[in-house]
Amino acid sequence: MDISNLQELLVEEMRDIYNAENQILKALPKMAKKATNPKLKQAFESHLQETEGHVERLKKVFEELGQKPTGKKCAAMQGIIEEGSEMMSEDMPDDAMDAALIAAAQKVEHYEMASYGTVRAWANVAGMKDVAKILQQTLDEEGAADQKLTKIAESSINVQAANAAHA
Amino acid sequence: MDISNLQELLVEEMRDIYNAENQILKALPKMAKKATNPKLKQAFESHLQETEGHVERLKKVFEELGQKPTGKKCAAMQGIIEEGSEMMSEDMPDDAMDAALIAAAQKVEHYEMASYGTVRAWANVAGMKDVAKILQQTLDEEGAADQKLTKIAESSINVQAANAAHA
Repeated sequence: MDISNLQELLVEEMRDIYNAENQILKALPKMAKKATNPKLKQAFESHLQETEGHVERLKKVFEELGQKPTGKKCAAMQGIIEEGSEMMSEDMPDDAMDAALIAAAQKVEHYEMASYGTVRAWANVAGMKDVAKILQQTLDEEGAADQKLTKIAESSINVQAANAAHA
Repeated sequence: MDISNLQELLVEEMRDIYNAENQILKALPKMAKKATNPKLKQAFESHLQETEGHVERLKKVFEELGQKPTGKKCAAMQGIIEEGSEMMSEDMPDDAMDAALIAAAQKVEHYEMASYGTVRAWANVAGMKDVAKILQQTLDEEGAADQKLTKIAESSINVQAANAAHA
């Protein structure tokens, strides 16, 4: 496959994110089920709903670009989720598991922030302001989801997990 | 493998980052070689030097934790680098390639920001202030590297790549 300009690169990156979001849609319910802290469980559940919205936005962007909404295997997200699954299969105290789930989820969020930051920037430069605006909405939500996870970690989980270690 | 507390989780995550950093050490020279924009080339070269320092810091942290500095395959970084390599093998104009290299590098930086943010937080909660301080130094450098890439993209590459598309 050859790329002749930034717009084509944008479409390629869109296919990567589209696949990544669909992988996340499958992973989030398992993470919500595994979480013990109610705030964390709820954060995963509400982010699942947001993620469904992100997929819809991507479909809208594909339409704007005159492209079919198809994905291309995102090996990075596959690796992030694979590591998360391995960790989830390990035996550990609930609080440590919650801390580990947050760590995995923040890797997911950071991957998405990097990806959406890139496509938003490329869309802007290519003069596709409407597309950039749609992508910015999702970028904002990914950033907010990441911050929410940090707050949950700071307010309860990490401290409990450390205390458990000293018990 | 069982995890009984946050400190053990911290060691596990350290092994993941240690492996990730070593993967990055191998990838950066190829990215520097592939980059056309002199600022970008230089950014990759100087980040390679920084990354060597990050590996040394991780060795110091392993020592503080009473552990040998060994890695555990980081599937996430493997996926990010695999996607970057695929993209680098594609045929595209120099400016688009530079934009794609920045996108790949920002995914690397974001993965590291998530990882270092996690271990820094866990070290703090576990009362290991010296370890947290060392990890914070690297976290700051990863964040600065990401911002430098955004500036390079904004100031030149993206615009040139879009213009090339209209030529």
